[in-house]
Amino acid sequence: MAYTFVLIHGSWHDNRAWKPVIDRLEQNGHRAYAPTVAGHTATDKKDISHAECVQSVVDFIKTSDLHDFVLVGHSFGGTVIQAVAEHVPDRIRRLVFWNAFVLLDGQSLEDNIPPHYRELFAQLKQPDGGVMLPYPVWRDAFIGDADDVLAREAYSTLSPTPSRSHNDKVPLKTFYSLPIPKSYLNCTEDIALPPGPEWGWHPRMSSRLGLYRLVQMPGSHEVIFTNPHLLADKLVEAGRD
Amino acid sequence: MAYTFVLIHGSWHDNRAWKPVIDRLEQNGHRAYAPTVAGHTATDKKDISHAECVQSVVDFIKTSDLHDFVLVGHSFGGTVIQAVAEHVPDRIRRLVFWNAFVLLDGQSLEDNIPPHYRELFAQLKQPDGGVMLPYPVWRDAFIGDADDVLAREAYSTLSPTPSRSHNDKVPLKTFYSLPIPKSYLNCTEDIALPPGPEWGWHPRMSSRLGLYRLVQMPGSHEVIFTNPHLLADKLVEAGRD
Amino acid sequence: MAYTFVLIHGSWHDNRAWKPVIDRLEQNGHRAYAPTVAGHTATDKKDISHAECVQSVVDFIKTSDLHDFVLVGHSFGGTVIQAVAEHVPDRIRRLVFWNAFVLLDGQSLEDNIPPHYRELFAQLKQPDGGVMLPYPVWRDAFIGDADDVLAREAYSTLSPTPSRSHNDKVPLKTFYSLPIPKSYLNCTEDIALPPGPEWGWHPRMSSRLGLYRLVQMPGSHEVIFTNPHLLADKLVEAGRD
Repeated sequence: MAYTFVLIHGSWHDNRAWKPVIDRLEQNGHRAYAPTVAGHTATDKKDISHAECVQSVVDFIKTSDLHDFVLVGHSFGGTVIQAVAEHVPDRIRRLVFWNAFVLLDGQSLEDNIPPHYRELFAQLKQPDGGVMLPYPVWRDAFIGDADDVLAREAYSTLSPTPSRSHNDKVPLKTFYSLPIPKSYLNCTEDIALPPGPEWGWHPRMSSRLGLYRLVQMPGSHEVIFTNPHLLADKLVEAGRD
Repeated sequence: MAYTFVLIHGSWHDNRAWKPVIDRLEQNGHRAYAPTVAGHTATDKKDISHAECVQSVVDFIKTSDLHDFVLVGHSFGGTVIQAVAEHVPDRIRRLVFWNAFVLLDGQSLEDNIPPHYRELFAQLKQPDGGVMLPYPVWRDAFIGDADDVLAREAYSTLSPTPSRSHNDKVPLKTFYSLPIPKSYLNCTEDIALPPGPEWGWHPRMSSRLGLYRLVQMPGSHEVIFTNPHLLADKLVEAGRD
Repeated sequence: MAYTFVLIHGSWHDNRAWKPVIDRLEQNGHRAYAPTVAGHTATDKKDISHAECVQSVVDFIKTSDLHDFVLVGHSFGGTVIQAVAEHVPDRIRRLVFWNAFVLLDGQSLEDNIPPHYRELFAQLKQPDGGVMLPYPVWRDAFIGDADDVLAREAYSTLSPTPSRSHNDKVPLKTFYSLPIPKSYLNCTEDIALPPGPEWGWHPRMSSRLGLYRLVQMPGSHEVIFTNPHLLADKLVEAGRD
């Protein structure tokens, strides 16, 4: 069976990283779209709210006239697809959270990360509202399964992310009553959030979904760079009926 | 080395699902037996106690004159093999709990599942004492690694399980002092119980065994349908000396 | 890229077990050294302090004139490489803890193991200060992924470990401020320590490292016997830049 995927990237990323994932999905007969979220292109202004991020994806979906698709969110992208689902619930076949934040109503992303990250991001915030991830954190905590060359190459594609997208409280008045099926894809070596019950991705975030499907694969937070073809296959396993 | 296995299914199942597992075990030189637990055939009466479940397996073992076997329990089947071990300890070479409940003395299965399941099963209980698992729960929480066709096909083989087998308190006066070696086989994507320290299979259940061997494999609660040959191989790894 | 590894074994082991790991590393162009820690040869006197264990490795490194190496510690060996790093920080390229203890300043290994092990080791302590691991514990909790023949063969190479190396408090005044990169290699079926937040290896020990890289592989605490080539490959993944 062929599915349509809409793929929402995380912080510091834009839509380019999805290219090898989309190629693999298309080779296997699926269709896939990957909009860049507002404020996430290197040249974008960085004073962008979470609501503007959400609206940019809703606009993309409506303009492209997309229906009956699997909506995937990675990392920060989870907070986006939660709100997008409230805007266009009838167009979504299934939600897939890939090592993604799942916010409770009224929370921000920052409410869900440990103090050392909050302090780091506060220190690194630029006057224009952008904040960049330092290379040493990226290299060991985000992409530990890459070799040195790939880690540096992938880092060079990143750009500062809008600080407000992490700080804004996100109203989610209907998300938890939407009847859309949900899946969580967890990479077993992802330590971008510290593993364990207090701060880890899974099952802390996944369990908030209620009834959900769990798919796992080996790899770090950035298998989009280190293993994009397996990522594509696991997105199908997570997204299919 | 060749082993003899006695395989005890879980709730909603009968012995038919073990067929491809048994085929694989026999191809590799082992022998395997899989009795259907009392009350677990579709046409059985459903007003069956936990003690009757246990007695049906004890009777099967004695009638079949089985000795020196590895006794495997899946899910609810774990509560059965604990009690069977008290009845025929000298016949058992090793106990293998495959994503199985391990009860403390005097507990019921229901004492070990989260409130949302207790409420669901109470609502779904039929006048004849049977309770069926709803398809949406089965599809995402029990067999998330199947495709749609296999998930539906496997569901069609299930039947209502005797409610009393979940509610009866099980006396286990000698289980925890029996000198039988024990193993726990854990499927890493099994979310039939919510993962995590409060309700998860492993290490919550496994740690109750004291000294035990851990074997893990990828897959959901129902690898008996989605990956029976690997299940058979892992049962050998768990069951061997 | 070619790296130099210095490999520090755990309790009851000596340097012989590293042989197939070293062979694999050398086949792939790396260099590797594996000193036996003081008191850990079968014929050594067993009244050996933790400081003497550390000094023996420091002496080996200096005598062999080793620089710019990846320092690996397994199990108890983690407590040794922490202290070695304080002695020769400038020679170390990266620290790799493989299912290893990571002590807080002033702790002993015994401070980090559950009561049932403390009681077992107290009972088994010999007049000469040595303590041996009983076979049944080894077989199921340490090397559950071996078959019977390999489990027994590997056990025959073990010898009593110096009790003081487990009991001595280890001063670590500078370890947590050293700028050396760190990795944690976790074997996913390692239950030598009971899995879970209270006593497990990961993330209890790994999280103490602060920013670290996580590498995982299947297997027990003793993949050095059951899967040494994959262990070697994962040490490269953990140890590379």
